[in-house]
Amino acid sequence: MTQSTSVPAKGYAAHSSTTPLQPWNFTRRTPRPDDVSIEILYCGVCHSDLHFARDDWGMASYPVIPGHEIVGRVTAVGNDVTQYKVGDLVGVGCMVDSCRHCQACNDGLEQFCLEGFTMTYGSPDKHDGTLTQGGYSDKVVVSERFVVRMPDGIDLKSAAPLLCAGITTYSPLKHYGVKAGHKVGVIGMGGLGHIGVKLAKAMGAEVTIFTRSASKVAEAKSQGADHVVVSTDEAQMASVTGQFDFMLDTVPVKHDINPYLNALKYDGTHILVGLLEPLEPAVEGINLVFKRRVLAGSLIGGMPETQEVLDFCAEHGISCDVEMINIDQINEAWQRMEEGDVKYRFVIDMATLKDTD
Amino acid sequence: MTQSTSVPAKGYAAHSSTTPLQPWNFTRRTPRPDDVSIEILYCGVCHSDLHFARDDWGMASYPVIPGHEIVGRVTAVGNDVTQYKVGDLVGVGCMVDSCRHCQACNDGLEQFCLEGFTMTYGSPDKHDGTLTQGGYSDKVVVSERFVVRMPDGIDLKSAAPLLCAGITTYSPLKHYGVKAGHKVGVIGMGGLGHIGVKLAKAMGAEVTIFTRSASKVAEAKSQGADHVVVSTDEAQMASVTGQFDFMLDTVPVKHDINPYLNALKYDGTHILVGLLEPLEPAVEGINLVFKRRVLAGSLIGGMPETQEVLDFCAEHGISCDVEMINIDQINEAWQRMEEGDVKYRFVIDMATLKDTD
Repeated sequence: MTQSTSVPAKGYAAHSSTTPLQPWNFTRRTPRPDDVSIEILYCGVCHSDLHFARDDWGMASYPVIPGHEIVGRVTAVGNDVTQYKVGDLVGVGCMVDSCRHCQACNDGLEQFCLEGFTMTYGSPDKHDGTLTQGGYSDKVVVSERFVVRMPDGIDLKSAAPLLCAGITTYSPLKHYGVKAGHKVGVIGMGGLGHIGVKLAKAMGAEVTIFTRSASKVAEAKSQGADHVVVSTDEAQMASVTGQFDFMLDTVPVKHDINPYLNALKYDGTHILVGLLEPLEPAVEGINLVFKRRVLAGSLIGGMPETQEVLDFCAEHGISCDVEMINIDQINEAWQRMEEGDVKYRFVIDMATLKDTD
Repeated sequence: MTQSTSVPAKGYAAHSSTTPLQPWNFTRRTPRPDDVSIEILYCGVCHSDLHFARDDWGMASYPVIPGHEIVGRVTAVGNDVTQYKVGDLVGVGCMVDSCRHCQACNDGLEQFCLEGFTMTYGSPDKHDGTLTQGGYSDKVVVSERFVVRMPDGIDLKSAAPLLCAGITTYSPLKHYGVKAGHKVGVIGMGGLGHIGVKLAKAMGAEVTIFTRSASKVAEAKSQGADHVVVSTDEAQMASVTGQFDFMLDTVPVKHDINPYLNALKYDGTHILVGLLEPLEPAVEGINLVFKRRVLAGSLIGGMPETQEVLDFCAEHGISCDVEMINIDQINEAWQRMEEGDVKYRFVIDMATLKDTD
């Protein structure tokens, strides 16, 4: 523990599962030789920030500063850092450490580290045991391996959500083999869904958005979808039976996936990225067996792939649709996010933290 | 309809969902130019024969002669037949026709024919509309495309079950990529499971049988498994967490697959070949998402792959463990199969049909 020499910092923290986020003065660790010190410029607001802070998953420790879509500028580097220098524009996503020596880590799949990865907030640091704290703050200290470079020309504000929402949808589209000409369905029109549509389009796929509400068809089209299917309309669902190579299912709450399985071709793949709960109503075995379909999971992405999605988005001119907020609007933003009132991602302008005291 | 010139035949048929199989004189179609006429020597007994005849799946027509693990000798060939001649030893599996022009058929995946394949029994023939009848009979007439060659030296009796049980397990092991060194779990010790173990072993995998009963451990070892895990023993299941690349799940009745998902590594694949019912208890989404695991289905195999499994088994000296019966023992055999009293597949010696009248 090196608290005595650690670096003063400030951020917005939850002090319990029921209290709003409020300003909190805390410390960042004294940088280690492989650490990059970062002044945070922007931080995206992910639904999981809220779930974690409210202890919906039973894994919270307090106080906790949420935020894992971090964009910032390098202010210092340790002696062992080779890839970054002061002034570089960088990003930090959902992970800040892993064991670095298991098969998964060696393969650049740190999210599957056999010893468990260290989350950007709310995880014990593997070296000093202190709890990690996230990006709703003025600065962060992160090992070089878990830092990515912001590509030249990318819009920093709208790139922040790529570090979670972007990689979460990019990784499975790549891993499960989406290619030009494939028909891809995207289920859900939130932070994940809207970027999933752009990524799948950029990969050359023909993209269909599935929405529960006929009132959202125009909005879905404006997101760049080639087609829109209203999933609550049985005739529309029947018309797409056996049509899709992939479904990218971004819905985080219980829903019946059987109608979507039936919309897949034989050998089609239904990808879950947000549904952690029991699959109810139950998946019908016949919907997998009779057409050799696949139901697959995916979790964020490894560090090489996190760099890759940023580069891919810069190359293809893809950015998230964001609504900028000041840090003192964060509690209101969480409430609006809960109500689905965001298109499509809030991003905090962290310069506004300097004005709060 | 060409009933007037069709070929007299006899077999054992179910005349309703509640009556036992009994001798029945019927007719096979007059051979078409692409047809192979086959004298049936042996026919394996598959659990689905019983399900179909008892109308458990609500798709039966009567009378129906079951049987889709057919081994026989060619007695005549049509003018367009190029691959077979009189006297050849051949097999017929679960399919006897398909559209032959869709993408699936063109890819040799006739089981996924976009117009639906014609089952060996109980399906309307695509050309004359008559109902197909299966292999519990003395002869069958099948288009060349749906006939496979028995490799030299293969034991015909014990090869019969390869035409359903064998291809059903071989196809997914190949398709999903089982290779030497992989750790493969096989769930279920019946007709499918026992051949699945032999196939996975021959592919170079390290194979573990999962059985519900400690009393079956010795039997599981005798099937050639490297390891046995008693799935009802929580400590044994906990000891294999994250160990497997693949699970081959041959269990045809509802069971909780979550403990098996947890026994998979990240990127592991759980393959369903027998479970057509709702997956209850519900699959936990987190078990797929957090380790990028895959839940996959598979259905028999296409015709090229059905030939391949026969050749593979001949090459590797693999045969099914069978118990030979006479045709007049079929009702008793079905009862024993229902009670799980078969190791591991009944095969009917069809020469015994000549003695019945």
